[in-house]
Formats: sequence, C-alpha cells, structure tokens
Amino acid sequence: MKERKVERFMRSEGLNVGDAVRITEKDGTVYEGIVMPPYELSPGETLTIKLDNGYNIGILIDAIESVEILEKAAEKPKMAFQEVLPKREGLPNVTILGTGGTIASRIDYKTGAVHPAFTAEELAKAVPEMFEMANVTPKLIMNILSEDMKPAYWKRIAHEVAKALNSGEDGVVIAHGTDTMGYTASALSFMLRNLTKPVILVGAQRSSDRPSSDSAMNLTCAVKMATSDVAEVMVVMHGETSDTYCLAHRGTKVRKMHTSRRDAFRSVNDIPIAKIWKDRIELLRDDYRRKSEGEVEVDDRMEEKVAILKVYPGVSGEVLDFLVDRGYKGVVIEGTGLGHVPQEFIPHVERAVQEGVTVCVTSQCLYGRVNLNVYSNGRKLLKAGAIPCEDMLPETAYVKLMWVLGHTNDPDEVRKMMLTNYAGEITPYTRFDTFLR
Amino acid sequence: MKERKVERFMRSEGLNVGDAVRITEKDGTVYEGIVMPPYELSPGETLTIKLDNGYNIGILIDAIESVEILEKAAEKPKMAFQEVLPKREGLPNVTILGTGGTIASRIDYKTGAVHPAFTAEELAKAVPEMFEMANVTPKLIMNILSEDMKPAYWKRIAHEVAKALNSGEDGVVIAHGTDTMGYTASALSFMLRNLTKPVILVGAQRSSDRPSSDSAMNLTCAVKMATSDVAEVMVVMHGETSDTYCLAHRGTKVRKMHTSRRDAFRSVNDIPIAKIWKDRIELLRDDYRRKSEGEVEVDDRMEEKVAILKVYPGVSGEVLDFLVDRGYKGVVIEGTGLGHVPQEFIPHVERAVQEGVTVCVTSQCLYGRVNLNVYSNGRKLLKAGAIPCEDMLPETAYVKLMWVLGHTNDPDEVRKMMLTNYAGEITPYTRFDTFLR
Repeated sequence: MKERKVERFMRSEGLNVGDAVRITEKDGTVYEGIVMPPYELSPGETLTIKLDNGYNIGILIDAIESVEILEKAAEKPKMAFQEVLPKREGLPNVTILGTGGTIASRIDYKTGAVHPAFTAEELAKAVPEMFEMANVTPKLIMNILSEDMKPAYWKRIAHEVAKALNSGEDGVVIAHGTDTMGYTASALSFMLRNLTKPVILVGAQRSSDRPSSDSAMNLTCAVKMATSDVAEVMVVMHGETSDTYCLAHRGTKVRKMHTSRRDAFRSVNDIPIAKIWKDRIELLRDDYRRKSEGEVEVDDRMEEKVAILKVYPGVSGEVLDFLVDRGYKGVVIEGTGLGHVPQEFIPHVERAVQEGVTVCVTSQCLYGRVNLNVYSNGRKLLKAGAIPCEDMLPETAYVKLMWVLGHTNDPDEVRKMMLTNYAGEITPYTRFDTFLR
Repeated sequence: MKERKVERFMRSEGLNVGDAVRITEKDGTVYEGIVMPPYELSPGETLTIKLDNGYNIGILIDAIESVEILEKAAEKPKMAFQEVLPKREGLPNVTILGTGGTIASRIDYKTGAVHPAFTAEELAKAVPEMFEMANVTPKLIMNILSEDMKPAYWKRIAHEVAKALNSGEDGVVIAHGTDTMGYTASALSFMLRNLTKPVILVGAQRSSDRPSSDSAMNLTCAVKMATSDVAEVMVVMHGETSDTYCLAHRGTKVRKMHTSRRDAFRSVNDIPIAKIWKDRIELLRDDYRRKSEGEVEVDDRMEEKVAILKVYPGVSGEVLDFLVDRGYKGVVIEGTGLGHVPQEFIPHVERAVQEGVTVCVTSQCLYGRVNLNVYSNGRKLLKAGAIPCEDMLPETAYVKLMWVLGHTNDPDEVRKMMLTNYAGEITPYTRFDTFLR
C-alpha cells in the first residue's frame, strides 16, 4: 500500500499508534487523545485520535500546527496480571458464552482490528468482581459482529446454553453484540423450553478500552442475575447513562432504542424484571418464571423463509408479491398506528394468505397494541386473514413466526400459536382480553 | 343481509344503537356503556358496547344474563347549537384544512361509518374556544384515513397551505389522521420553501365522540400555535396523557411512538419547539425559524420510486436486488445499531449503488445517530457507497430522499443534499461535526 499523508506525517513527527498526544490546530483548537491506527479505507488526509470521552475524531493533517507527545505508547504501565481464582465451594457456577461483539473485544492499537479478549485470565484481569460472586467459566463459541448474527447461530447458542445448564451450571451469561441482541434474546426465549435457570444476554455499548465503557458493570450485573431465582431469558444492560444500576429485561420485550447510549436497551410494553444494584437485586415484578429442577430442552425448529415488511405512504404491494413468489412462508408487517396498511395494499395481503403465506401485523409505533377492529382498513385486513400480533414487537413477532412455522403449516394452528403467550411476548391486557371474548 | 344473532337480540330487548345500557353476564360481570352498531364483518355473535373509557368491547350474546337500558339514545340531550362567530377585527386568521382522520370525524351510530364533521358550524359547536383566538376558516380538502395518505396527496396539501398563506392567512392548521402524520409533516417541511408562517398538523388519538377524546384540546392548541411567531411545519399533539399541555414538534423530527396513547407523538433526537398551555405558549428553544414577510413557495418535485428496507438477522439481499431490478431510484435502509447491515448484505448494496440507486442508511434504534466509521461492516458499507443519514428518522430520510431525487440524479449532488440540513432534520452534534472534519 502506498504511504499516505497520514503515515508520512506520523513518521516525520515520530508518532506511534497508542501515543498520548496534544494536537494544536492552526486555528488554535487543541485536542488531547490517543493516536489511533489510520483507517485503511480513508484517503489518509486525517490523523485519527481517540478523545478521553471515547470518541474518535479525524483531524485534517493540513490543519495541524503542532503535535506534542504526552506519553509514548510503550511507556504506559501494564495492568497487573492476576491469576484466575480457583473454583470455590459455596459459590454458584456460571458459564459465560462468548459470541463476539463490543463487550468481548479490545481494539488492537497496532492493527485497528477488534479481537476477542475472552480467556478466564483476561476476564479476571478486566472484571475481577465477578469472580467474587461465582465460579466463572468462559467459553468462546463464536466471534462475530452481531449484525452478522443469523438463525443458524441462534440454534448453536441455544444448544450451548442447554448443554451448560444441563451439566449443572447455575446460570449462563451470553456475551453478545448489542445490534441484534434483542432478536437473539427472543429466539432463545422460544427455543429454550422447560427453562429452569437464568439465561442472561449481555453486551456493551462502548468497548472496554474506552474510559466510558459499560462492559465491566454490565458483565458483573449479568453474572449476578445469572445466579438469581429468575428462570427466564433476559437482557442485562445499563439502566441509566450513569453507573447506578443495570436492568434485567424480559428477552421477548426488549429492544435497542438508541445507537450509542449506555442505557439504550428498553423494555417495550412491559416493565423490566429486575434492577441490579451493586449490592443487591431488586425485583420489579413477581410474575416471573422461578428456578426449578429439570432438563432444559431445545426446540429449535425454525422456518427461515420469513420476512419483516414495513409499510409507509407510497409503499407498493409488489414487494409483498415478490416475497410470496419467492416462496416465503410468513411475513410480519410493520403497519402504521394500530396496525394499518394502505387500502391499496390489502389485496396483496389477501393474495398472500390465499397462497398459504402467513401475514402477521405489528405496529411501527413499537409501543402499544395493534387493534384491527377500530377502523375500516383494519377490519378489511382481518377479513383478508392477517393475524394481529397484540403488543408484540415486530422483531419478536418475526422470530416467533419463524419458530411457529417451524412447527406447523396449518393456518389455524399457526394463528393459535402466534396468539399463545409462550415466553412473555404478549402482555396481558384486561381490557383487550375483554374485547376478544 | 340475513339477520344475525346480535340483531335478533337487540330487537327482542328493544335495544337501539346509541342506547346507554348496563349488561350483566351470567358470571356476574357487569358492563356499562353505549350500544354500538354490530360490525358488518363479524359473525354476529356479540353485542358491541363502548365503555366509558372509550374502548369498545364485544360481549358474547350467549353469556348475557340481563340487559338494563339506562338511557334511550333518542332521549339524550342535544348539544346546544351555536352560530359561527363572525370575523372579528384584531384576531389572526387561521385556515383549518381537513384531510380526514379521527380528529375530523364522528361515528354515525346508525351506520357505524365515520364521516367528517367539518363545517364551521360543527367546529364551533365542538370546539368553541378556538373561535376566541382566531377567525377560523375550515376547508375540507380530502377525506381519507391517514394510512391511505400518499405522495400525490402531500403535494395537494402543500399547494393548499401555500394558497392560504399567500392569500393573507396568518397560519394554517391541517387536521390529519395520526398514523402517517409524521410522514406528511416531513413532506411539507421539504416541499414548503421560504416558509414565512406557522403550519400545524394536528390529529386525535381518540375520536370526538369518546369522553377521553383529545381532539378539542389538540385543535385549540394547534390554532394557538398557528398564531405564533414560529414559521415552521410542526405537529401539535398532547404532551402528556392528561390534559395539561400540548407539544409542538418539529415536522422532521416527530414520530408516532404509541398506537393509542394521547401523548403518542414524540420528538426523536431533538427537543420539541414549544409547550402549549391553556393560557400561553412556552418556547423550549430559540433556534426556530421566525415569522417573516414573503411568498411561500411549493417545491413538490418528488421521485416516488423510493423504498424503506429494514434489515434483521436472516434478511436476504434479494429484496434489495428486486427493488433495483424494478427500477427503484433510492432505498433507505433501517440498519441495526449504528447503521449496520449483515456482511452478506453488503454486495447487494454495492450492486445497487453501481446501478445508480441511492442507498441511504438510518438506524432501526430510531434514537441516536448512525456512525459507519466504528466497525468494519460499517466502513465496508461506506466504501460500497451508502450514505449515512446522521440522526435522521428512517421515515424522514425516506421522504427527503424522494424529494432530493426529484431534483437531481447526480450521485454527488444527491449525497450533498441528503447531508444538507433543509428543515431541521439533522440535529447538529458538535462532537460528530468534529468527527467529520
């Protein structure tokens, strides 16, 4: 690769990746931070440094007046090595399954690549507190960015969870990228049948090399929740932007609602199961599944020809036709408001249902419950055979529909299963129940 | 139509639509409410009544023990008729454009049909307060459910708004269904150029025949805001579930976030422009466009071959291929997290861009800003030619992309326009600005 302006500049200034520097621009602006590896795909006109707040900025090399090296990378003190604690009697046993993502990674300053830090030694070094609460066994089962997660991986994770729990572990923590953590939590909620122990998904919004990282606290809270009495699939993440507590969200009701905030995960149409404070777990409800004895089963039959389709003003029914023609078995519509689609869209739904494709209706509002009985287009949609998915998140309905269609093709049975509450995905709503009588 | 069980039951009990009744079920449950017309599409096994809380419930006729008529429909006192107030000197002039939706409708209890109540007389009767604040001229320009809204109608509304404002009105209120009000607000924000006066979209989550209706207060607040100094397109709806105040949201930053709550509309990634109290407008910011002189212009060139495409675990790139093959000119992707797509999806984006299709990236998190520089898949997406849409809502990016592609096909120009802030759709973010330098 040809040397770019940034590499020439670093060479001439004696800068190495990882150096702490103070940059003064020609206009007088001053930045302090750590020199980052130049992005391989950039034109190479900027020097990238990581600020104390964790953000990277690119500074135009032509705009730089002077550079002061505050501390050379090599001179930085190394973290003290700490031995892994031996298994201790009386402590619960928790397996942490690594799948990749920000939480299990550190940036290699030399290459800019993200690589997993996931041996017991590394965990103990990074988050010693959790070894006080449990005998922690880490196991890396895959290493992917969570946007690359897919149904086949959900199955692998489900089997690893069951294996750990059925071999006597008291709980399992799954370290997972945050992008699609909600989808995986839903998938595990449906696949893990007769769940008798806690299963916790945990992630980090900021990598552990950033001062603002949430990974240590999230992991600690996750391990704590994994030793609790709640035998459900949950997501444990920061409850506020500050380090006050984490929240344990039910796996089928949780959604990433912000691209970067540490408290990005929210329970939608439901309240979280617990607050996890530094010194205790505060249960927020008592209608959770309790820990019990018995083998956890994996029911991972999934029909993967399922799609999510959002509708909006100007949407064409041709995309739905295309899915039907391509052999899709189910489609989850993100309707507007109470679950509506444009009148012109309804014949396409009719056709899909006639061809044996299950059409489920959710709302792009996300919050609230669909109700197709209020307005005429909704009633027509019902008549066309669409299934209104109560207050299910579109993402949860999507995962559930894959799972349901993995079990039956019978339209009545599919409808019945979609409207049966398997894993807390439907919040009971007295008034709505009354409506349905 | 054959008489169904419900019609027979109503006849035998002497029940008419609109009667107030107390129903006791065989299990002792008691309901009080107003008899509603039986749904034409139902099997006719249930009697529908509207409860005081505004919800309809269906009661199985076989489960009914007894019916007591509390008040006959015909005996209900009629609202006193009130003459339209004559135009008064010194009051501002506001045109209310009716487009349909819950706010402008009443249910006809005889037929169950929704019909618009939109003459000056009817408005004055229903919401007399607003005639104290302004000389209100109502004009019904269409009567559709907002899920049937489409780009052609956006244009018609834009021209009606400009016509009213340019003929000397001080502000315009648009009564609109809530389902797609956010989309229309965005469309008007881009189409109305040189906007010199307030343009307010307003709706209702509960129809005006329901005790919990929000339509009167929303309309009053909308008219008040239409006489303010803020020359922007705004959505005015309840700020809380109770009748404390309304919020005026910037048209490009607002989204319906709940299927049924009265405070369903929220500003996303921004703060609202104002709180509208019963007695005053409280401005929440001062960086708004001020009222001024001059003709409002309509720039309604829109490319309608644009789509929104959500990605998720298991998504196939074939839908994007289909859109490209069908001649779509632009696609807005709702990526995960910071704006990611699965690695396997990236070649499909590459192909789309190569074929001249604009691919824009937003986040399904809704809150927060996309950033494709943090992780490798994001950087690959950038390299493929995708445009990261800052903190724009997917819906706003969709409307904006239609508008931008209505003006140019030049990829550089499209990119430049998508990243130019035309109507407050991009929230400035100092740190991010720094990042972009």
